[in-house]
Amino acid sequence: MCESNAYIEENGNETLFLETVDIIRPEGMNIYLRDFWGQEKVFKGRIKEISLLKHRIVLVRQECEDV
Amino acid sequence: MCESNAYIEENGNETLFLETVDIIRPEGMNIYLRDFWGQEKVFKGRIKEISLLKHRIVLVRQECEDV
Repeated sequence: MCESNAYIEENGNETLFLETVDIIRPEGMNIYLRDFWGQEKVFKGRIKEISLLKHRIVLVRQECEDV
Repeated sequence: MCESNAYIEENGNETLFLETVDIIRPEGMNIYLRDFWGQEKVFKGRIKEISLLKHRIVLVRQECEDV
């Protein structure tokens, strides 16, 4: 099993967002995720870093870079 | 081994960019990649889709969405 868990990083803490992730697809300001069983979730933010060796996907909420 | 290969998709074709990828990190308009052995590569573009089950990272060159 090579799936990873997706976490949301916020204020130095991490919250589990979705386990055993298969698909990760950036879609505009969102990240579409689908797990091994077909469950779909959308996160309003961006990918901070993925480590496949650590089986970790770290997401962060969208920053307003234009402001 | 849970690493994936990264491919560049262009004009319907795929070119291998980096094998056995560990780290994937979007950095502005670039994607930083590091493989299992520590080799680092930067791709000017974005992530189209990652499938961990298929061990595939698909990258596409940056589109000029603002034009």
